[in-house]
Amino acid sequence: MKPQYNLTGTLLALVMALPAHAQFAKPEDAVKYRKAALTVMGAHFSRLGAMANGRAPFDAKAAAENADMVAMMSKLPWAAFGEGTDKGETRAKAEIWKESAKFKEAAEKMQSEIAKLNVAAKTGNLETLKSAMGSAGASCKACHDTFRKD
Amino acid sequence: MKPQYNLTGTLLALVMALPAHAQFAKPEDAVKYRKAALTVMGAHFSRLGAMANGRAPFDAKAAAENADMVAMMSKLPWAAFGEGTDKGETRAKAEIWKESAKFKEAAEKMQSEIAKLNVAAKTGNLETLKSAMGSAGASCKACHDTFRKD
Repeated sequence: MKPQYNLTGTLLALVMALPAHAQFAKPEDAVKYRKAALTVMGAHFSRLGAMANGRAPFDAKAAAENADMVAMMSKLPWAAFGEGTDKGETRAKAEIWKESAKFKEAAEKMQSEIAKLNVAAKTGNLETLKSAMGSAGASCKACHDTFRKD
Repeated sequence: MKPQYNLTGTLLALVMALPAHAQFAKPEDAVKYRKAALTVMGAHFSRLGAMANGRAPFDAKAAAENADMVAMMSKLPWAAFGEGTDKGETRAKAEIWKESAKFKEAAEKMQSEIAKLNVAAKTGNLETLKSAMGSAGASCKACHDTFRKD
């Protein structure tokens, strides 16, 4: 079997969520997986967003549950940005691999803000949730602005 | 390394209790979400499969983590099979809505087998895992055979 990751990919994976070795048979499997994880994360984040901006009534139990799901999903995509996964059905920019330290930093910032969001969502306080949503959303946007094609 | 997603039975139960209504703005959002959840589930199930059939070395910790993720994901797709989600980019057959009791039964069978798989994966015993994988895989296949287009 060919190695799935170059040195950068391996280092990235070591410090991130899951052991990356041999997790994807083909690059397109990795692309599909990371998009799926981000889709699930985004759906649950949106449910928190609806509460934060008043489109949905605040439900402390649902907020805590959705934040748990967002936090779990936030760990998953990173191991799927290995070598050869810059092609195909992806909006990933080449900068992800060219500026891998910066990408790693952005990914960690997001996970850190999502972890704080998860704590905030457990307080049962809507204002606390709103504040954490702002920071978490900004960390999503920062990474998308730099590393994702329009 | 710390476990990245420790799922308790409580958390699983909470997710099961998530209200299905008003979770998706558009039918296509529901379709995308359920496919994403099943993609993430399938990826982690495949990692267990690789251990079960010897393509990958047995790693008890990784098995437990992957089984947690499979169990978590197994709860998510069902709320996304609402009215109007039979169209678009989906292989869902009309039978899902025409024979909804049968579909619900198949979905619950799968979740039940996955819950058993999760217990089996925590034993640290490869033979126990293999056995549970067989039943779990059969429950996936049964539902796909009846309710998913080729």
